[in-house]
Amino acid sequence: LSGHVRKGISLGQSWFVVSLVGVCIGLNAAIISIVTAWLSDIKMGYCSDGWWLNQQFCCWEVEGDEVDGCESWKPWTTVSLGRWIIFIGFASALAFVASHLVRSLARYAAGSGISEIKCILAGFIMQGFLGFATFFIKSITLPLVIASGLSVGKEGPSVHVACCIGALIARLFEKFSRSQGHLPCLYKANSALSSSPTGKTREIVTAASAAGVAVAFGSPIGGVLFSIEEMSHTFSIKTMWRSFFCALMATFTLSAMNPFRTGKLVLFQVTYERDWHFFEVIFFVILGIFGGLYGAFVVKFNLQVAAFRRKHLVNHGVTEAVMLATLTAVIGYYNRFLRLDMTAMMAILFRECEGGGNVHNLCLSSSQWSISFSLLLATIIRIGLVIITYGCKVPCGIFVPSMAIGATFGRMVGIMVKALQQNYEKSGMFMSCVPDVPCITPGTYAFLGAAAALSGVMRITVSVVVIMFELTGALTYILPTMIVLLVTKAVGDFLGTTGIADALIRFNGFPFLEKEDHAYNVAVSRVMRTDLLILPDRGMTVKDLEDLLTSTAVKGFPIVSTDGSRKFKGFIDRTEIKYVLERVRNTRDIPQSTTCIFTTQDYDTDSVEMEPASFDADEDLQEGLFSSTLSDDGVNFSPWVNRIPMTVAPQLPLEIVMQLFKRMGPRVIIVEDHGVFAGLVTVKDVLKFIATEKLDHGPSWDERGGL
Amino acid sequence: LSGHVRKGISLGQSWFVVSLVGVCIGLNAAIISIVTAWLSDIKMGYCSDGWWLNQQFCCWEVEGDEVDGCESWKPWTTVSLGRWIIFIGFASALAFVASHLVRSLARYAAGSGISEIKCILAGFIMQGFLGFATFFIKSITLPLVIASGLSVGKEGPSVHVACCIGALIARLFEKFSRSQGHLPCLYKANSALSSSPTGKTREIVTAASAAGVAVAFGSPIGGVLFSIEEMSHTFSIKTMWRSFFCALMATFTLSAMNPFRTGKLVLFQVTYERDWHFFEVIFFVILGIFGGLYGAFVVKFNLQVAAFRRKHLVNHGVTEAVMLATLTAVIGYYNRFLRLDMTAMMAILFRECEGGGNVHNLCLSSSQWSISFSLLLATIIRIGLVIITYGCKVPCGIFVPSMAIGATFGRMVGIMVKALQQNYEKSGMFMSCVPDVPCITPGTYAFLGAAAALSGVMRITVSVVVIMFELTGALTYILPTMIVLLVTKAVGDFLGTTGIADALIRFNGFPFLEKEDHAYNVAVSRVMRTDLLILPDRGMTVKDLEDLLTSTAVKGFPIVSTDGSRKFKGFIDRTEIKYVLERVRNTRDIPQSTTCIFTTQDYDTDSVEMEPASFDADEDLQEGLFSSTLSDDGVNFSPWVNRIPMTVAPQLPLEIVMQLFKRMGPRVIIVEDHGVFAGLVTVKDVLKFIATEKLDHGPSWDERGGL
Repeated sequence: LSGHVRKGISLGQSWFVVSLVGVCIGLNAAIISIVTAWLSDIKMGYCSDGWWLNQQFCCWEVEGDEVDGCESWKPWTTVSLGRWIIFIGFASALAFVASHLVRSLARYAAGSGISEIKCILAGFIMQGFLGFATFFIKSITLPLVIASGLSVGKEGPSVHVACCIGALIARLFEKFSRSQGHLPCLYKANSALSSSPTGKTREIVTAASAAGVAVAFGSPIGGVLFSIEEMSHTFSIKTMWRSFFCALMATFTLSAMNPFRTGKLVLFQVTYERDWHFFEVIFFVILGIFGGLYGAFVVKFNLQVAAFRRKHLVNHGVTEAVMLATLTAVIGYYNRFLRLDMTAMMAILFRECEGGGNVHNLCLSSSQWSISFSLLLATIIRIGLVIITYGCKVPCGIFVPSMAIGATFGRMVGIMVKALQQNYEKSGMFMSCVPDVPCITPGTYAFLGAAAALSGVMRITVSVVVIMFELTGALTYILPTMIVLLVTKAVGDFLGTTGIADALIRFNGFPFLEKEDHAYNVAVSRVMRTDLLILPDRGMTVKDLEDLLTSTAVKGFPIVSTDGSRKFKGFIDRTEIKYVLERVRNTRDIPQSTTCIFTTQDYDTDSVEMEPASFDADEDLQEGLFSSTLSDDGVNFSPWVNRIPMTVAPQLPLEIVMQLFKRMGPRVIIVEDHGVFAGLVTVKDVLKFIATEKLDHGPSWDERGGL
Repeated sequence: LSGHVRKGISLGQSWFVVSLVGVCIGLNAAIISIVTAWLSDIKMGYCSDGWWLNQQFCCWEVEGDEVDGCESWKPWTTVSLGRWIIFIGFASALAFVASHLVRSLARYAAGSGISEIKCILAGFIMQGFLGFATFFIKSITLPLVIASGLSVGKEGPSVHVACCIGALIARLFEKFSRSQGHLPCLYKANSALSSSPTGKTREIVTAASAAGVAVAFGSPIGGVLFSIEEMSHTFSIKTMWRSFFCALMATFTLSAMNPFRTGKLVLFQVTYERDWHFFEVIFFVILGIFGGLYGAFVVKFNLQVAAFRRKHLVNHGVTEAVMLATLTAVIGYYNRFLRLDMTAMMAILFRECEGGGNVHNLCLSSSQWSISFSLLLATIIRIGLVIITYGCKVPCGIFVPSMAIGATFGRMVGIMVKALQQNYEKSGMFMSCVPDVPCITPGTYAFLGAAAALSGVMRITVSVVVIMFELTGALTYILPTMIVLLVTKAVGDFLGTTGIADALIRFNGFPFLEKEDHAYNVAVSRVMRTDLLILPDRGMTVKDLEDLLTSTAVKGFPIVSTDGSRKFKGFIDRTEIKYVLERVRNTRDIPQSTTCIFTTQDYDTDSVEMEPASFDADEDLQEGLFSSTLSDDGVNFSPWVNRIPMTVAPQLPLEIVMQLFKRMGPRVIIVEDHGVFAGLVTVKDVLKFIATEKLDHGPSWDERGGL
């Protein structure tokens, strides 16, 4: 019975933890949104009704287009030059504070964090990356950075912040933290379903990443898909469901907080009245190609900037950020599309011309050339700014800047197509347009351009479709969106672009196997490490063992039989050895000459069949094990030896070993030749091999998933 | 160079095959839609302007509500009783033709096919299930069945038809069929990335299933998610992308064909003007509970009906179908919500009351009680009909009937909530409603009820959200939809319901490992088979081998060393042995006493490292291998022996073995104890063990993914 109660509690705890994570993410996102909106407006002026109001709330009662305020909203000065200087001054100051906080308190708060989280979810350990300092500093610097006007988005960092919340809360709860403890291997083998000791925490972090995207875009299902397509390493229905639940809780909380007082989750609600025409597909293809090229271009040059930064700017993070903010403000102030907040700008660009969409003369035929030029300029300048800014030492995401670039370019194409159609109304191509009725909606081109650029730089497709239409509600444009993304993907594949997150993983040399499978035509025996420190199953003294531990930093040791046949007996982690030695020392004094026993016959084949109750592996049980640990023969490590790690034959092709790593998630794979220990392989070995051998090529078009 | 050209061609072929599959699925769906619409209307009358026009096209020019036609549309008779009889007569006749065709020409065309396809995608082989006869008969009987008015949907069968198209086209192309050929194992190991010989075809079938859902609902992204959440066994980004592309092609084709002349993909476009209120969440919870109960109820009783059918009605498929159709027509004729086509009915129920939504007096407060009663009756009767109808020997799906049931129930709840709000306008609960303005939208309750029922019976969540909002475009209701599905899932988990597809898989005893992982606390050594026919690596004569093959139907043989140590040497398939023997016989006469050699030293560790070019494994190369097959020593089978199948240790817990089956997809796993052959395990062994041991319980709430 007690087992049932325990199970019930543990289950309730799971629900509770995920809910709590979701709610916290929602709250945090709401606060960040409110602060960001206020800080963004403070650059231009202040509210005379109350300093804490941003322009929108200050002018709440006043109807009108959103370009320039109301009476209560006072600009800092009426002198144009003065405004410009104050604008720049605020931008630099905000960037300074943000980068200084990051530099002095939490260096991991810099960047978007998506690459690192991908690695963490794949099993890589980065102490502190999901810690409290990172969470706190990233949360408070994010509004500063966005308000500073730097060409960076808050979506990537939001995901990182969300993952921090997930990891922090998960760690608070015993259930999740216990799974990281030093359980004897027998229990681990039994509870190995989540395929790694930190499996539970990882699942929570995956769910949190979904919630992060969900609140950043107001797109709960898009978040779930993003966590599947981009973040999670292995896919399971359970993780998907957890992500769904977490995203729901977060979005619901955000929606209840209602930070924008619009009652909408949708960031840029548009309802396109007109359907699309088949002839437009050729223009959609242009947008798709732009997306692909943009992605390739940005990834390539951003990596070069990153290399430059690593070489020359390591200790100048603050200066760099301030310079960039100043530069952005100086350049951006005089282009109407650059000066505006990127989200606000997209909302304007996505609009239909009918019904108040003619902001900034976007819809006037007479100004079509000047507007197009202005949009083109905004596109080009923004691309340059994104390339130099993304990756600097403040929290920065690339989602929204990419979408903004796509939107300006798309709107430009849209305006040009509209002009074309109006001038050649009679031509065969535009036959399907009804005369004297608007036919082309430039706003949809902006929308599709945004989707293309986002997909081009991240190399994700399905999530982008869902995010885009959760963002806007433009359901009739789902087929065009898919067509555009198809072209974007084809172009990206053709150019061999990797997504920016994966490119940065490679650049930083994190141990991460890409999701796609490649064929290397190499057996695992060529990759495995054979120069290993091996423990004999019997005969080693405690002193030998301790000397070994001090002389090396190796994380785990294979155990082989002492009879010279090198029969493989098991694997033990360094931490487990240290833990057992320490516990034993606490119990009683042991002489240095005590022998260490790594295998006994007691734990035989059937010993894994235990009562479910014993799973819980609580302290009592561990005590029991410890009392049997010290026999007259010596220190018995065998309960902590993993006798059934994943083993493969030396002839197995490398790609299957890589699949095993990816799909089953072991930390090491033992190579065993008919029972004889041959070597050991880890993800790092595989990556080192791939990097050093420079195996003929990168993955081919086909292999990268180009159908 | 030739390798590159070949690769290019093969790549082009992949694209081409997937496109072709998508286009064919779209065409087929368009034809089925048109025929179904015409056949459904023919029960009531005919078009005097042309017999080939259905009511909609016949009355195309005439405006008005869609309940009762126009002048050109003539009912068969003006006598009410006569109409009733003709209606029933048509229904029975259509059901008779459909069931007779299925019975005599393609028995696999019966049912929805989703369960079977899930098994096929997991590696189970069902000859003919995706064959031409199945495709053709299912395509032509589907409109008949839908038109007969049986409480079945066309979505499940559409997926089956789509998968048939995928499999047929894939088989047409050498590339896909070749992967099923008798390649020497060396090549297989190298090209094992798709983890099974029929991997390519399976990927195409997965993509086709996405396209099937996409065209059935006009929901391309919903289709992709359905293929991930429900159909595919292992998830990969590549498969996701292929599904995306295939669904896009299919939907685009369907959209270009425009079978309904509405220019919309969206089946029931609704734009809910009013947002939802937080107090409505409690009513949403009721809908969610309904969904969960409905699912549990239908799955339970439908299985009992299936058992009854198997026992008593095996040879009365045609009679059964005709009886059911007659019964449905007799009962349904007098309830306005049962008589209508289910899709048309849902379109009406989803509507807002404003702007012509008051069809059948659905919105009149004065008739709210009679309408509610009518809806309740429709709900109850339809549930009964679905339980007895789903699974009868005609093509039948359960998606749309479930949604229809949910919609009638939901609308009823909605009407009641509206009445409640109007009577207690002043109560605290309805505070957030603006006075004298409509507050509750009963149509949204119908929408949410449909989502709940669909999710309850299929046990899918994320796909349902996306399908529902691709169906309607009701983006503002995404949070309520998620809340409802959350409750539905919780109720379903609490009641221990499995999705109907999985329940039928179990009922039919197909070898299928469920996606969720359970802990069994058993080592693989207890599950493995040890009473095996084992081949010695040397010393067997051709006669021995042939005798063995005739005496047993076993599909594959482990090979062990002859020296008595039972060292494991490899595994060979029955088909490979037969193939080699046959080929060798064709080359020259071999005496019965020739020895068979299964292992040589030639193919050693490094032999897997071959030039990529040799992958293509074309005929020349095979010839070369064959010439070396017959040496003086005997027949050399070694190139066909898989020396590196997946092996595990006997102590490995069963659940990890199950994960290996699911994630890596091998057909057999060898159990090897330090190099010594111990046994062999297949999915069937695992399932047999689970079934016979009746391991304590079904999966627990937690294990089933209840967070």
